[in-house]
Amino acid sequence: MTMNISGKQIIGNTLSGNGIDTFQSLIKNNDGIAYTFHEATTAEIDEAIELANQAAPIYKRLSYTKRAEFLDKIADEIIAVGDELINITRQETALPQGRLLAERDRTTNQLRFFANILREGSWLRAIIDLPDAANPAKSDLRQMQIPLGVAGVFGASNFPYAFSVAGGDTVSALAAGCPVVHKAHPAHPVTAELVAQCIIKAAQQTGMPEGVFSMVQGVTYQTGLHIVGHPLVKAVAFTGSYQGGKALFDAANKRPEPIPVYSEMGSINPVFILPGILAEQGTDLAKSLAQSNLLASGQYCTNPGVVVLPDSDIAGQFMDDFKLEVDNASGGTMLSDSIYKSYTRGTEKLSNHEGVEVYAKGTGEHDTAAVPHMFKTTAGIFFDQEALSEEYFGPASVHVVTKNNDEVYKIARNLRGQITATIWGNEQDLKDYAELRYILEDKVGRLLVNATPTGVEVANAMVHGGPFPATTNGATTSVGATAIYRFTRPVCYQGLPDSSLPEALQNSNPLGILRLVDNVYTRNTIS
Amino acid sequence: MTMNISGKQIIGNTLSGNGIDTFQSLIKNNDGIAYTFHEATTAEIDEAIELANQAAPIYKRLSYTKRAEFLDKIADEIIAVGDELINITRQETALPQGRLLAERDRTTNQLRFFANILREGSWLRAIIDLPDAANPAKSDLRQMQIPLGVAGVFGASNFPYAFSVAGGDTVSALAAGCPVVHKAHPAHPVTAELVAQCIIKAAQQTGMPEGVFSMVQGVTYQTGLHIVGHPLVKAVAFTGSYQGGKALFDAANKRPEPIPVYSEMGSINPVFILPGILAEQGTDLAKSLAQSNLLASGQYCTNPGVVVLPDSDIAGQFMDDFKLEVDNASGGTMLSDSIYKSYTRGTEKLSNHEGVEVYAKGTGEHDTAAVPHMFKTTAGIFFDQEALSEEYFGPASVHVVTKNNDEVYKIARNLRGQITATIWGNEQDLKDYAELRYILEDKVGRLLVNATPTGVEVANAMVHGGPFPATTNGATTSVGATAIYRFTRPVCYQGLPDSSLPEALQNSNPLGILRLVDNVYTRNTIS
Repeated sequence: MTMNISGKQIIGNTLSGNGIDTFQSLIKNNDGIAYTFHEATTAEIDEAIELANQAAPIYKRLSYTKRAEFLDKIADEIIAVGDELINITRQETALPQGRLLAERDRTTNQLRFFANILREGSWLRAIIDLPDAANPAKSDLRQMQIPLGVAGVFGASNFPYAFSVAGGDTVSALAAGCPVVHKAHPAHPVTAELVAQCIIKAAQQTGMPEGVFSMVQGVTYQTGLHIVGHPLVKAVAFTGSYQGGKALFDAANKRPEPIPVYSEMGSINPVFILPGILAEQGTDLAKSLAQSNLLASGQYCTNPGVVVLPDSDIAGQFMDDFKLEVDNASGGTMLSDSIYKSYTRGTEKLSNHEGVEVYAKGTGEHDTAAVPHMFKTTAGIFFDQEALSEEYFGPASVHVVTKNNDEVYKIARNLRGQITATIWGNEQDLKDYAELRYILEDKVGRLLVNATPTGVEVANAMVHGGPFPATTNGATTSVGATAIYRFTRPVCYQGLPDSSLPEALQNSNPLGILRLVDNVYTRNTIS
Repeated sequence: MTMNISGKQIIGNTLSGNGIDTFQSLIKNNDGIAYTFHEATTAEIDEAIELANQAAPIYKRLSYTKRAEFLDKIADEIIAVGDELINITRQETALPQGRLLAERDRTTNQLRFFANILREGSWLRAIIDLPDAANPAKSDLRQMQIPLGVAGVFGASNFPYAFSVAGGDTVSALAAGCPVVHKAHPAHPVTAELVAQCIIKAAQQTGMPEGVFSMVQGVTYQTGLHIVGHPLVKAVAFTGSYQGGKALFDAANKRPEPIPVYSEMGSINPVFILPGILAEQGTDLAKSLAQSNLLASGQYCTNPGVVVLPDSDIAGQFMDDFKLEVDNASGGTMLSDSIYKSYTRGTEKLSNHEGVEVYAKGTGEHDTAAVPHMFKTTAGIFFDQEALSEEYFGPASVHVVTKNNDEVYKIARNLRGQITATIWGNEQDLKDYAELRYILEDKVGRLLVNATPTGVEVANAMVHGGPFPATTNGATTSVGATAIYRFTRPVCYQGLPDSSLPEALQNSNPLGILRLVDNVYTRNTIS
């Protein structure tokens, strides 16, 4: 394949570069020239959304098998781009090749994962209450999930594949039956265009309606706000900063017709280390937690940013072991200049914070690389100072040393919403601190025991979400099978003749799916 | 039972009437004296919420069987109050005895319905992904639904039992595991206190933690806004006017920690009558639709307020048949003075609207009773004039006569979100207008064919919801089994030892519930 980067908006099958404002890619082509990208004009964004809206009624009526073919084909097309894609993304994001190869696999597996969910079909949550000849008040009621309409999806900087153009938000929206208008993240516009080309090709080859996917480029907030404000957009997904995610949420709620915004805004992912396991495995634990914290220069939403541990000699040893990892760590180039600046401001703030000690400090690979930090503080300081509960996106951790169990529980109870929390404990610890599970589950999307929170599996049971401010909608997940429900809603059909019903609800159960029929879960037909 | 009305807030097991502001009940006691109710003070509201928050961790850990006992017991206690409750409510609401008896049954059945859901247990949506020894990247992940925390629930005026103190919102929150702070509707404060006493008794008798239910009284918006603004309240349910529901939604989104507000705000519930069935059954149809429209002085959220029908002689006959029903109808006292005034303002506005003809007008039983109205207009006027798409809560209907199918489809496409829409058609009609189902399903919570939308069954498949402005959250329902999910969210447990897991997710499946285990739906244990 020859790479062909237009620098334009991809509006269905058409390229459009009407915008006068442009921005340059970080990377250069073979002639040493940066790629020029046109900012999407509001007219271009409108066009993409209107085309998506025209595609919506056609797309929603295609069989789930056809939708599945489309998703599978996107995966094939991404693989077909080959090394060129990895090389480009490596230059654009500074992420290492191994990580990108793994992320590409994760992304294509995720596409196939949702394709399989569509083929199996039970995700539709079909519920049927049959009429009763003996009871005329009982009607024929049949419920299933239907798509919301056009989805606006924002690319994330830290996952150029898995949370960007063909990432989790796009695939779950497409699987749900929603056309997607994607806003490319300006930190990797070339990668974005390459992946968008794959989606367009797959759409063409599998007979999808034009407009089922479009992509716009832009560096300003206006592009995003215009998408969220458009009356034909019915749902929005975003992964990124609190400021960005909250701004979209607020804008959506101020619309004449408010729409759901699923912003995943990160968290501090606290780790509670209990005394027994600390004594048994402190050194190993320090190493694995430090590695999780320093991974990819700490640029994970699930990065364990706060460690809570009991004050003791063993805790001191743990911290020294952790310190060794940080001291020896060398941070790399961050995903974008603004992330680097924000991280540096954050660590400076903590370094100068009263009651907070800089316990360890690594080095940066160069002048503008992330410098790993490890901070130490007390529970008292942690309670009082909001700054310590903020996320510092990057390779930093705050270690809170507690004097007693009351402090441990108080920290847990006072937590804001988190994507994850982790308990490290041996059998006895988990008995002694049984209360902790009940407290922490109310604060998180995912609660781990004796595991590191980085590494978010695309699985049926995954929850990558959590109460505000981790996300703007704590009842959802942006990773895993149930992410699809962000883009659907239930509808109930009453009294429809069988031939007018969607296949999923017809008596003969042509899709062979699991349904709740008169209180019984069954794949049987209705006679 | 001797009726004992305190006129105070019921804060757990304590009565509190610290407020200086009071209001009087419409009804009088045996001595001919109205009951005096104390407005809840903000301190009292805070106390109720704090007590609920203390109850929350205890309540959520009780077995689902215990929760079910509590709900069943509430039903028993309501029945035990006997005729006195019906008599009081009849005086407070002007609703007829037969309707109230049926509504009480519906309410107690609804309590038992949710109790049975809890006993069966599969509502928890347990999902388990087991680890794989051959693949170390695959973790033990287990997802289920957990309660959100304290719920604020607002009573509705039009359903003094089924959508008030022990109504659908309260029961689905309690079933979900959320303590409830209920704001009684000031249109029926005596009924509210009687039912609240039932809940408190049931809570005491079944060993629920104090604070699992509290009720506050008030006539001002401040009471409601204070509940929504309280940081310990985690979800809110409301049924009522657009203004009221939207104000709560906006307030919740402006909180430092936004919370979901499930406002059900009514709709015009359009009915599309297709030509074939009109010719075959026009007269019967006119009668049954008119009855649905005039039922209980039209005070249903699902009242069919707009009828779309093709211009023809037969349509003229339909309208004359409908007119006869309206002309002969006599409207009664409405649920409250403010509802009466709003209805009267609305029908006056439509009566004076250009292009709108008053086609029929009934009578009111007395000077301040609802006067049934039937209006006629054209599709052109209907498109242009927003006033015609508004809900006029009461016995009014707008009949839109269409010149061609384009107008029919355009009306359907331009609809705002609705709780229901209905198609009346014979077999041929449904074939000829197959498109209509696809258009309308995107606009509604429930789509009916050849049925009247009033009469909302408490069933597994029911959706009483719909896109904005019918509700503030189109992905939910306030009636039926899935109403419970408004008060829950998923949490994922990773790597927890079996003994630390909730019962629903333990290997032995002690609850015997349906679970999705490694892609298979099963009630089997995990070995």
